Amino acid sequence: MEQPTMKEVVSNDRLITGLSEHNDQDIDRLCTNAMRGLAMDAIQQANSGHPGMPLGIADTAYVLWTRFMKHNPSDPDWANRDRFVLSAGHGSMLLYSLLHLSGYDLSLDDIKQFRQWGSKTAGHPEYRRTPGVETTTGPLGQGVANAVGMALAERYMATMFNRPNYPIVDHFTYVVCSDGDLMEGISYEAASLAGHLQLGKLICLYDSNGISIDGSTDLTFTENTSQRFLAHGWHVQEIDGHAMAEVERALEQARADTTRPSLIICRTHIGYGSPNRQDSAKSHGEALGVEEVRLTKQALGWPEEPLFYVPDEVYASMRQVITTGTQQQRDWDDLMGRYRESYPDLAVLWDHVQAGDLPDNWDTALPTFEDSMGAAATRSVSGQIINALAPLLPTLIGGSADLTGSNNTEIKGTDALQGDNFAGRNIFFGVREHAMGAILNGMALHGGMLPYCGTFLIFSDYMRPAMRLAAMMGLQVIYVFTHDSIGLGEDGPTHQPIEQLATLRAVPNLHVIRPADAYETAIAWRAALEHRDGPTALILTRQKVPMLKRGVLNGQSHGPLAAASGALRGGYVLYSPPKPDVLLLASGSEVSLALEATRLLAERNIAARVVSMPCWELFEQQDQVYRESVLPPGLTARVAIEAGLTFGWERYTGSRGVAIGIDHFGASAPYQDLYKQFGLTAEQIVKVAMQLVTA
Amino acid sequence: MEQPTMKEVVSNDRLITGLSEHNDQDIDRLCTNAMRGLAMDAIQQANSGHPGMPLGIADTAYVLWTRFMKHNPSDPDWANRDRFVLSAGHGSMLLYSLLHLSGYDLSLDDIKQFRQWGSKTAGHPEYRRTPGVETTTGPLGQGVANAVGMALAERYMATMFNRPNYPIVDHFTYVVCSDGDLMEGISYEAASLAGHLQLGKLICLYDSNGISIDGSTDLTFTENTSQRFLAHGWHVQEIDGHAMAEVERALEQARADTTRPSLIICRTHIGYGSPNRQDSAKSHGEALGVEEVRLTKQALGWPEEPLFYVPDEVYASMRQVITTGTQQQRDWDDLMGRYRESYPDLAVLWDHVQAGDLPDNWDTALPTFEDSMGAAATRSVSGQIINALAPLLPTLIGGSADLTGSNNTEIKGTDALQGDNFAGRNIFFGVREHAMGAILNGMALHGGMLPYCGTFLIFSDYMRPAMRLAAMMGLQVIYVFTHDSIGLGEDGPTHQPIEQLATLRAVPNLHVIRPADAYETAIAWRAALEHRDGPTALILTRQKVPMLKRGVLNGQSHGPLAAASGALRGGYVLYSPPKPDVLLLASGSEVSLALEATRLLAERNIAARVVSMPCWELFEQQDQVYRESVLPPGLTARVAIEAGLTFGWERYTGSRGVAIGIDHFGASAPYQDLYKQFGLTAEQIVKVAMQLVTA
Repeated sequence: MEQPTMKEVVSNDRLITGLSEHNDQDIDRLCTNAMRGLAMDAIQQANSGHPGMPLGIADTAYVLWTRFMKHNPSDPDWANRDRFVLSAGHGSMLLYSLLHLSGYDLSLDDIKQFRQWGSKTAGHPEYRRTPGVETTTGPLGQGVANAVGMALAERYMATMFNRPNYPIVDHFTYVVCSDGDLMEGISYEAASLAGHLQLGKLICLYDSNGISIDGSTDLTFTENTSQRFLAHGWHVQEIDGHAMAEVERALEQARADTTRPSLIICRTHIGYGSPNRQDSAKSHGEALGVEEVRLTKQALGWPEEPLFYVPDEVYASMRQVITTGTQQQRDWDDLMGRYRESYPDLAVLWDHVQAGDLPDNWDTALPTFEDSMGAAATRSVSGQIINALAPLLPTLIGGSADLTGSNNTEIKGTDALQGDNFAGRNIFFGVREHAMGAILNGMALHGGMLPYCGTFLIFSDYMRPAMRLAAMMGLQVIYVFTHDSIGLGEDGPTHQPIEQLATLRAVPNLHVIRPADAYETAIAWRAALEHRDGPTALILTRQKVPMLKRGVLNGQSHGPLAAASGALRGGYVLYSPPKPDVLLLASGSEVSLALEATRLLAERNIAARVVSMPCWELFEQQDQVYRESVLPPGLTARVAIEAGLTFGWERYTGSRGVAIGIDHFGASAPYQDLYKQFGLTAEQIVKVAMQLVTA
Repeated sequence: MEQPTMKEVVSNDRLITGLSEHNDQDIDRLCTNAMRGLAMDAIQQANSGHPGMPLGIADTAYVLWTRFMKHNPSDPDWANRDRFVLSAGHGSMLLYSLLHLSGYDLSLDDIKQFRQWGSKTAGHPEYRRTPGVETTTGPLGQGVANAVGMALAERYMATMFNRPNYPIVDHFTYVVCSDGDLMEGISYEAASLAGHLQLGKLICLYDSNGISIDGSTDLTFTENTSQRFLAHGWHVQEIDGHAMAEVERALEQARADTTRPSLIICRTHIGYGSPNRQDSAKSHGEALGVEEVRLTKQALGWPEEPLFYVPDEVYASMRQVITTGTQQQRDWDDLMGRYRESYPDLAVLWDHVQAGDLPDNWDTALPTFEDSMGAAATRSVSGQIINALAPLLPTLIGGSADLTGSNNTEIKGTDALQGDNFAGRNIFFGVREHAMGAILNGMALHGGMLPYCGTFLIFSDYMRPAMRLAAMMGLQVIYVFTHDSIGLGEDGPTHQPIEQLATLRAVPNLHVIRPADAYETAIAWRAALEHRDGPTALILTRQKVPMLKRGVLNGQSHGPLAAASGALRGGYVLYSPPKPDVLLLASGSEVSLALEATRLLAERNIAARVVSMPCWELFEQQDQVYRESVLPPGLTARVAIEAGLTFGWERYTGSRGVAIGIDHFGASAPYQDLYKQFGLTAEQIVKVAMQLVTA
């Protein structure tokens, strides 16, 4: 399709000299030029950023924001707003321009601080830093999957809360994505699931400019995108992204198709308007340069000075959304008011889940366990807990990446969530771990939801980028990672986590909890539900582990074990003689080994303390007095035991201590053989402890 | 399409009683039943494994192996063999049956040891453990991308070595994949690139049985697979995977299409033959049970006893490939002999690259650097090194995930590798990090290649599963990870690695090298090229770092710095006064900070040793005497400095030492601001060192 030449886009004379005489088309150009001007100036001032995308997709985004998006800049948190995700987060100045010009709490001074320390206008959009930013984006593909999660949450919440004539949850989710987003595997996974789930209120605007950082997409990305999305079951349109009427018509049609998610392929020119950089990879990732900014403004018919120029007409036009959005929200408030009268119980529940509150005494629903209970896999106990909590927490929903039975993630007695049944609480994510993680983020970002998901611990590697963003955004999502060590046995090294515990502990703001028995598993779930400002990974066994009997003597040689509630502090003294000679630390399935070693050591007149350490992050949050009460500085004979990498345990063993673990890949064999072959035995602990004590 | 009933498949009587009278069809059934019998018996004996897939795809795989595959069981390493990848690695017993029955060095006793400690028949196929296994599979999607790498390597090697009438590199790459493989994002990424590159000799057999672990694929995977692969530019066929004539015809057509990779959608019945588990997820991941094995054998017309039954006719028939394969290899040897005479130089090169040898004195090509050289980004130095080595190492090829210029991975003066130009040495992987990693594995597995790839360090998170497999398989692949810290500045926390150094160090058998300056960058590349049995990650700066002047006094206060060759030992004393009071450890861009701190400390009469620690893994391989010469046990006042997580540094700082790092996510700002804000300054090092020394 022919693109208008730059000269045709607008008549310089008319725009610059005749601002007061514009017609509708003029104001559109004025607004999009203001957006482009702000993007260029901010990036130039920072001498850092990505101008190509804001220049290229401005027309499309402008149409969406001014003619379709339901939002209220005065209240970015309005529950029923349309969601907007800029998956191509490098184009952050597009979003900041829109937010500023639409009247969000983002000033021109903020724009001028683009990419500076402490500013509201970070290099990539950051959730919670900037009002109106719905999710942190930048790592490509994540935003697309976040949007799928938001759209899924909308359908789930709508199904739960809407009643005839009370569409209190009823909004679209829009996402703008780039070539790069669509090259990432996560975008295929997410799109495939979105098509399957018939998420008709998800609309993706694809900024198809044919350019990525390395040059033309012809270099590597020549698939038929339209056909690809059709294969996923999407509604697909292809338009000129600079032709506002086409954008408008396409958005109307996309919104009208309520059973298929929509892809609108918007053909655009990256770096639109830049005489020397338009349609070039050069416009992608660096400031245009002072001279080229000048030339581009000329070409667009925009005054070169002042920088950060916004005519009053632009504000007047684009901030009309404050009025309309406020009115829309007021109407919704009225609706909600009537809803409260008609459905008081639902309204109370609505308030609860919107606030993210847990019901009073929710924890009384946690199953209680008995010392007399036999050995049990912690994954199985976790399944019991999920099912005990589910009736109390109606927005606790989740699923697995095709390992539902193994992960014990099913909420029994409820349906599969499907395109024709959004009352279902069991999501079948498919073997799509990466999208699963990012969809969970979208669900949490949407609000009202308490999402969890499961896979084998080893496959957390497939979803790390999404987990990192959950941690960065401080989202409450819960990962149920089962099959947590060589304890899974025969499936072998490809399936046996070795370094995964260490690498998850390395993620800031992610709580990693590896309970030792059923008691601690209940504590782990409690901690996860109470960890409101970040994700939690529950690390659970495939194999059965003994119940650590709390109320009675453990074996012949030592007194009762401490209550599992100590696990809430991350680490606690599970058992200690009055004067321990040696300290054994362990997590999960290895705690029972440590206890067994304690018994054997006692036979040799060596007194061992056992510290159960299910969660390093929680332990680090305790004060020094507590930490030293658990790990007395004077007790330097320490042995850590964990069926994983020893990496990092030095923090607790100290210079003199020793960590017993597995610093190599696993092997395929029955797990009992592996524990023996790899030296994870009570006998080995005894040997190492003896060496330390007698050294 | 109608499937034959089980009764129709074979007549029990004839098979069991009339073995000597079979016709061709009988022998086919006999062989596939033997395959199925071995799979069922081995899995039942281990009481662990995945019978559904070996039962389901046996017919298809049998046709491929007996009528198409060019291979020689007597020499699994024959360079010009067809490659076979079982991407659905959980179906390992399919592959073990084929290998055993075809005459590879895998005995019936080996089969009987399925999934036992030390056996050749691990739970999932393991490269180097079992002759004939081309790659380690299990984590889904990886094998598909490995196969793309193998097919790419075939084209590259063919282009380099083949001459008219000398097609010495000329083979197909076959891959069998499952629904699960095709749900994973990596499979889309890899398929998209394979289609773009027109890898016509890649043939993918998709075991489409409509069942995944959670049940019917209708639960979550309903995309149009045929349309999807057509969108990727593939040749697509759909057949009955149990109808051998259809399989044969489809394979012929797939092979005939030399410009498009082929997908053959083989509709099969999971658990084929099992009266109670066929077409059920129950057959997927657990042994059938003794009784069901019995019933299945009955249904297939197979004797219930003996277990592991293989009629002589089956061996006689399937081991014909030893004869034909040996003859094929002999013909190829003859061809190679004549090639050696016609193209002696190429033949020498062939031998070199097949052996993986570096040319004599290759290292003289490494660029030399001078103290007088100004500050330089280590990524830029790395680019110089790649370009200096490229002429000497013609199978050193690589590329970037759309960050070629930023990663400095381009081999200048050579072409882009494209479908019409496999002489190109620059691979444009697109924004497909995960597939890139796994494609690299395939290239390395193919043999002859020395592949590298680049992206930002943060995006190593996208490719971890592939990197883990490279480490597990011991493949020499090289990762060029640039933008290695907050030193990338304005792009902000989504792009700033924090935990990535720690999490890469956590991967067994992966060398992680973070050089401090140009000198150490050359050493890092040397170490990477000499690390033959595992991957190496080079961790490089975006920002310029000072040249650490080796031959002259560093500042006013201390003597010459040690030569960078010490970096080959992972860590070395860069500078030390005779009697250091404190020890500073650092890597990469922070080494210069440590040196600066040393100067400031000297002004305060505190003598500091600086240890540059670019590679923990290499350091750990040194003997204790060396390690203690670098880190004297008596010198417990230690400060580690690294612009990343402190996690793990306790190993070297000891109980008394302190690590200065960043234990939270980064921020968007100019990097100099970030270093100050986050306390990574010489002044902070001085402060901490003073506290330690005076404590």
